[in-house]
Amino acid sequence: MNVEKIVNQMHLEGLDGILLIKPENIAYIAGFKPSSFSIMLIHDGALLFTSKLDINEALEKSSIPVEEYQSLKYIKKKIQETLTGKLGVENSMNLQIYKKLCNGFKIELSEIIEKFRVNKSKTEIKNIEGAIKIAENSFKNLNLADNENKTAAELEYNMRAKGSIRPAFETIIASGVRSSLPHASTTSKKMEQPIVIDWGATYHNYCSDITRTILNTEKQEEIFNIVLEAQKAAINTLKPGIKASYIDKVARDVIEEYGYLDCFLHSTGHGVGLEIHENPSLSVKYEGKLEKGMVVTVEPGIYLEEKFGVRLEDIVLIRNKGKVLTNLSKKIKFNDY
Amino acid sequence: MNVEKIVNQMHLEGLDGILLIKPENIAYIAGFKPSSFSIMLIHDGALLFTSKLDINEALEKSSIPVEEYQSLKYIKKKIQETLTGKLGVENSMNLQIYKKLCNGFKIELSEIIEKFRVNKSKTEIKNIEGAIKIAENSFKNLNLADNENKTAAELEYNMRAKGSIRPAFETIIASGVRSSLPHASTTSKKMEQPIVIDWGATYHNYCSDITRTILNTEKQEEIFNIVLEAQKAAINTLKPGIKASYIDKVARDVIEEYGYLDCFLHSTGHGVGLEIHENPSLSVKYEGKLEKGMVVTVEPGIYLEEKFGVRLEDIVLIRNKGKVLTNLSKKIKFNDY
Repeated sequence: MNVEKIVNQMHLEGLDGILLIKPENIAYIAGFKPSSFSIMLIHDGALLFTSKLDINEALEKSSIPVEEYQSLKYIKKKIQETLTGKLGVENSMNLQIYKKLCNGFKIELSEIIEKFRVNKSKTEIKNIEGAIKIAENSFKNLNLADNENKTAAELEYNMRAKGSIRPAFETIIASGVRSSLPHASTTSKKMEQPIVIDWGATYHNYCSDITRTILNTEKQEEIFNIVLEAQKAAINTLKPGIKASYIDKVARDVIEEYGYLDCFLHSTGHGVGLEIHENPSLSVKYEGKLEKGMVVTVEPGIYLEEKFGVRLEDIVLIRNKGKVLTNLSKKIKFNDY
Repeated sequence: MNVEKIVNQMHLEGLDGILLIKPENIAYIAGFKPSSFSIMLIHDGALLFTSKLDINEALEKSSIPVEEYQSLKYIKKKIQETLTGKLGVENSMNLQIYKKLCNGFKIELSEIIEKFRVNKSKTEIKNIEGAIKIAENSFKNLNLADNENKTAAELEYNMRAKGSIRPAFETIIASGVRSSLPHASTTSKKMEQPIVIDWGATYHNYCSDITRTILNTEKQEEIFNIVLEAQKAAINTLKPGIKASYIDKVARDVIEEYGYLDCFLHSTGHGVGLEIHENPSLSVKYEGKLEKGMVVTVEPGIYLEEKFGVRLEDIVLIRNKGKVLTNLSKKIKFNDY
């Protein structure tokens, strides 16, 4: 990321500097994601302070200058020497660091970096596509006969072996009645149907996030068809300028039409990039509009309590309209898998 | 965890209530770790607010009452209705939530829960032992011939299949010259020697953390022997009442004696439990003393820049003296693995 652009925006927002701690924000600017506590200070340019644990890798990979991190006191002194005006800090900064570091400065919560991050560059889109490709190629020929833990192990093995350093999030494989729990952890119980599989890989620090439900009865297919209709309606509505919350409404309206509104337990989607959940949120509460270059999941679901659940999730890039980046078949029957 | 004990301690510290957001702190009290944003409010007793995504699992597993999370506004109203005195919040609370939730209350940063968490109960120790067992059993018969990504994939597959929902942290497999980087991510380059493997499993939300270095030359063995001597000296010094920083000094002194002080790039160890890194820290900066029931890693290392690195890490429970909980052989030669 071009530091000059950030400095310009910083000045436009009346800030004299920004302090970054969130590894994803640092990765966005430096092209290097620290594995231990690190701080970036942006004033005229950017400077990264990283610990002994990371410094050699940082010196090799970071696109901006690196110094060894010593202490918060040292950083505070640096800020005092450099800054005269307001200092922007992240929403995610914790109270302990805030107390130690920010006392005496004019502080303002700033989402400058997050705002840049919502519009993905060509390189970022390639990285997300890379993470999608790893996830999709890892999904083929899984053994679904044993239990959820085993299938998750196999899926994650495939992703790891293909270069995904970590799963983008805790893989969900929820079978039988457990599929009615949207965030169920895997278990060692005998696999049943349907099987909700929600998984993602990472590629150059970027995430993918896909869900498929493997169906085994007519009733499951009936519910799937409603979810599919809701997803299609939402995807077809994606374009720059539309309120993100409207996409959520479009999906919810389809599900309501069939009488399942109370069974759609989460929002319709979220931005995905360096973080698995980032802006925009396709939810009733989110106030922003869609823009070109955003990458979002679209993932309606219907969860029938104590029976089963169905979710379908794809990743879409917003251009003049939505371009679906995922390629897997949407409808998967257990006997055809 | 007994809520009454926490309420008593809270009153001793002059607090009328505590607000918890950190999933590990919530898990400690409720026996249920939320997967989405959740808040626990402790006043006379404890009450957990968790989202639709988690509520069914929470109702099933949580040992304390559960309500559906609506909004920060609603929580704020709850606090206003309940509390008259000071409200304790976590060090890790972020500024955004602090601003939305805490305005108008008498707030104090409090580590009450973290302080309870350092002394592990019998059940907690069993869970850590469970996580160690999974990690150790997963380490056997790995294929070390291919590349770091593949070996990591295999190791993580084994852990997943044995019930570890996620690796306790990003598995490090750093071979050849990359072993001189303490936190190196895996790559797809051809495996070389030595091979530093730093991995951990989770079991009932508790973590393990072990490192072995697979050695292939006399020089590597020579460095290993120094690291081993440092580790033994540190482990033999562990007992209640000793300053945690002294353990770091003991390990560092051995390494200094051999002239490698500058090559020991991190602290000697850290507490491990619901989080992979928790108190106490066995480092020069940490001011606390060791206590019975603490569980710590002891992990000295020597990193020879642009050559190779060696690290050895075991987990120790502090009773009257240190009881090593890990069981794997410490010295592993490539040809014997």
